[in-house]
Parts: sequence; structure tokens; C-alpha cells
Amino acid sequence: PHQKTVIDVEKDILYQNDMLAQRNRGYFDAKNVLAINLVSSPGSGKTSLLERTLTDLKGEMEFAVIEGDQQTTNDADRIHATGTKATQINTGKGCHLDADMVANALKGLKPKENSVLFIENVGNLVCPAMFDLGEKERVVIISVTEGDDKPLKYPDMFHSSTLCIINKTDLLPYVPFDIEKVKLNAKRINHQLEIIELSCTSGEGLPLWYSWLKSKVLAPEPV
Amino acid sequence: PHQKTVIDVEKDILYQNDMLAQRNRGYFDAKNVLAINLVSSPGSGKTSLLERTLTDLKGEMEFAVIEGDQQTTNDADRIHATGTKATQINTGKGCHLDADMVANALKGLKPKENSVLFIENVGNLVCPAMFDLGEKERVVIISVTEGDDKPLKYPDMFHSSTLCIINKTDLLPYVPFDIEKVKLNAKRINHQLEIIELSCTSGEGLPLWYSWLKSKVLAPEPV
Ligand SMILES: Nc1nc2c(ncn2[C@@H]2O[C@H](COP(=O)(O)OP(=O)(O)OP(=O)(O)O)[C@@H](O)[C@H]2O)c(=O)[nH]1
Ligand SMILES: Nc1nc2c(ncn2[C@@H]2O[C@H](COP(=O)(O)OP(=O)(O)OP(=O)(O)O)[C@@H](O)[C@H]2O)c(=O)[nH]1
Ligand SMILES: [Mg+2]
Ligand SMILES: [Mg+2]
Ligand SMILES: [Zn+2]
Ligand SMILES: [Zn+2]
Repeated sequence: PHQKTVIDVEKDILYQNDMLAQRNRGYFDAKNVLAINLVSSPGSGKTSLLERTLTDLKGEMEFAVIEGDQQTTNDADRIHATGTKATQINTGKGCHLDADMVANALKGLKPKENSVLFIENVGNLVCPAMFDLGEKERVVIISVTEGDDKPLKYPDMFHSSTLCIINKTDLLPYVPFDIEKVKLNAKRINHQLEIIELSCTSGEGLPLWYSWLKSKVLAPEPV
Repeated sequence: PHQKTVIDVEKDILYQNDMLAQRNRGYFDAKNVLAINLVSSPGSGKTSLLERTLTDLKGEMEFAVIEGDQQTTNDADRIHATGTKATQINTGKGCHLDADMVANALKGLKPKENSVLFIENVGNLVCPAMFDLGEKERVVIISVTEGDDKPLKYPDMFHSSTLCIINKTDLLPYVPFDIEKVKLNAKRINHQLEIIELSCTSGEGLPLWYSWLKSKVLAPEPV
């Protein structure tokens, strides 16, 4: 019975989350907001990718950012420095963002119509996989320093993502990372997963990411 | 009431875990086994550190290893290749090892008296912090590619660890990582935390880790 209760409560949590995620999805639909959930291990480069993107595409698109972290406002501060609207969620002991936290953040953030909303999740390659936030796209970042076996060892996140970014390609000369092998491993878990290689530091490959992003932005609806 | 139930069940899980962890602790005491819980983000180098250690200290100490991962037996295979006894726990959707999983693994592994037992946790800088496994030492690994702000952003893990290893120092020339800053950040979270810098790839700093390990191994009890 103990085990049963735990599983029941977990199911209940996921069910409640899925319901709220659908509500967020409706909100994004209504405002034609492209919501993107950015997930990765701690330090794979989520905030670095946002800093580059928000700076390079300033003027071309309208952005807003929700930052998730256990503690500190470090990441939101980095986003503010680019001149972008951002709000920080501190999860404390929590290991992932959930749809309810995002719904609350939206009240203050009020993303504009036809904008792109980035949601940077807590750095964790495991738990955020189970929690739909209502996003349109889920982008998983892996850096070449983490090893090419990660998609097989942490399959849920790769299975539930729509795009995989392989970051820190500038470090390839110094680490034993086989790009073709990681791609094969990722496709084995999710054959529909798109994959882009880039370096936030050198800028190599960023145009591919920007093209992908532009292809996902929906045209404003005719009034 | 929904929220209450969730918190109650979480408390219940942690309480049950703490009880079982104490039982593991008693088992380790009885056999004079030094149990070390290795925690980090995915890919920080837990298995690499074990490969080096088990090879370099072969003959000097007796080792056994419990490997935790969501999927695959990759890490246990790497440990077996060093000639060390190892057992793999696959957590599936689970995001951390718990004391019960360790208790079950011990039944098959049967670590020898006066040995060192390494437990490699699931790569996750968040959830394993809350789950005592009965270990004597908790070693958190951070690699220099992850950024020097990690102790502040993921404080629970640094707070609950006894040793912090800063790995991949061979990559310092290529990343913006301030060693003094990360040490200050880690000490701010846990002023008793010991810190060792090393590179599993170049071998630099490994002797410091081996000295630490030897200082923790208890002398066999006189019969
Ligand atoms: N060499 C190199 N370093 C990078 C690259 N991208 C990011 N970094 C570094 O990686 C570290 C972590 O970057 P962040 O952007 O903070 O990573 P994050 O995923 O936002 O981290 P969390 O939010 O804490 O999970 C920092 O030191 C960055 O400078 C890259 O392309 N190449
Ligand atoms: N440059 C460099 N690479 C390292 C070092 N230590 C480990 N690596 C590389 O980092 C990657 C991940 O190493 P692992 O030992 O598998 O890391 P892990 O923490 O066991 O990973 P998980 O078990 O999946 O969480 C591999 O490609 C290693 O070769 C180091 O000191 N320097
Ligand atoms: Mg970040
Ligand atoms: Mg490992
Ligand atoms: Zn979790
Ligand atoms: Zn967890």
C-alpha cells in the first residue's frame, strides 16, 4: 500500500501538470507565442545560447525569457543584460519547472503577441523530461565535454525533445567525443530528433540555429 | 489537501529512505567498508575517476563498485574492464539511487571486509542530494567546463558533500572558469568542504585524491 500511494500521488502530480500545461498551450496559441523549453545538464550552455541569440536577433524578433534555477538570479541577470524581458523562478529543493510555475510567471511577464518565449529549465537531464510546460518545442543541449553516450544513458530527455543542440564544438580537439556516434545514439532514441552542432563561444554553427528558430516562428495572424 | 498529501508522501519517502540508509551504515560498519557516494552532473567524470583509481590503486586496496544509471550497463562494463567487482542498477525513469536499491545491490555484490565501496549515483546535481545511501563520504565532482557558479546555483549537493573534486583541469586554458571563484562559492555553501583539483585525462592532481582516499580508509580492526 505504501508503494501504491506513492505511485498514485506521482500519477496525480503528472496528471495535474499535464492539464495545466494544456492551459498554457492555449494561452500561447491565443497570443501566437512560440514557447521553447530549453533543457540540459547543468552548465551545457543554455544561458550562453540565450545570450547569443537575444543579442544577435535583437530587432528581428520579440523575445521574453523565463529562467528556472534552484537558487540565485544569476541567469535572469545575464538575460536582463541583453535588454530582454525576463523573470526568474527559484525552485529551491525542486528539480524541474512545472506548468503551474510557468503559468504564474506568465502573469507578470506578459509575453507580447507573435513573440518567442524561451523557458530555461533547471539544469537536470532527468526530471524535467516528465513535465510538459505547454511548450511547442523542447530543445535539449548536450555539450561535447559530456561524452557521446549521454543519449543512451539519459534516454527520456532525448526521446521527448524536438531539437538537439550539440554545443561547445570549439572543445572537440581536446575531448574524446565522436560527433557521428552521438548523432546515431540520439537518433536511436528518437529518429525524428533534429540535430544542430554549434559553439556559443566561437559562434560556429549559430546561423543553423537561427534558421531553425525562424522556421518555427509562425507568421502573425491576419487581422 | 492535494498539496498536503504530496508533501506527506515525500516526507514519508525520505523518512523510509533515512531508516534504510542507517541500516546500510550498520552493514558497512560491521564489515569495515568505506562507502563513498559519487555524485555530479551527467558527464563530469565519475566513471573516468573510478577507472583511473581502480587501475592505479589495484593491489593497494580492495574495491567494489555499484553503478547507478537510468539506462545501459555502459558504466559497469567500464568498471569490469578494470578487473573490479561491479554491479549495475538501472533506475529507469528514476533520477537518483536510494538506500533500498543499494541494500539490494549489496546482497549480490558482497563487498569484502576492509574494502572501499564506490557508489556512482545517477548523473544529476539535484535529486541525489536528498537521498542518504548510508555512505561515509559524499564526493561531488564538478568539471571546469560547467562554469564556476554551479555551487551557488545547485547548493544542496555542495552542502551535503564532504569532498569536492574539480575535474578536467586540462581544459582550463579553453574555458572561462575561475578556480579561486568556484572554491569561494563552494566554501560559501559549505565551509567544511574539502576541495581537490585534478584531471582524469592528464593525471594531474590524482595523487592528492589518492592521499585523501588512503586517509579515509580505516585500519582493519585487530582480531
Ligand atoms: N568552450 C565553450 N564554453 C562554453 C560554450 N558555451 C557555454 N560555455 C561555458 O559553459 C559554462 C556554462 O554555461 P551556461 O550558459 O551558464 O550553462 P547553463 O546550461 O545555462 O548552466 P545552468 O543554468 O547552471 O544549468 C560557462 O562557463 C560558459 O562560458 C561553448 O560553446 N564553448
Ligand atoms: N578533457 C577531459 N575529459 C574528461 C576528463 N574526465 C573525463 N572526461 C571525459 O568526460 C566525458 C564523461 O566522462 P564520464 O567518466 O563518462 O562521466 P560520468 O560522470 O561518469 O558520466 P555519467 O555517468 O553519464 O553521468 C568522457 O568523454 C570523458 O572522456 C578530464 O579530466 N579531462
Ligand atoms: Mg543557465
Ligand atoms: Mg558514469
Ligand atoms: Zn526530480
Ligand atoms: Zn528526482
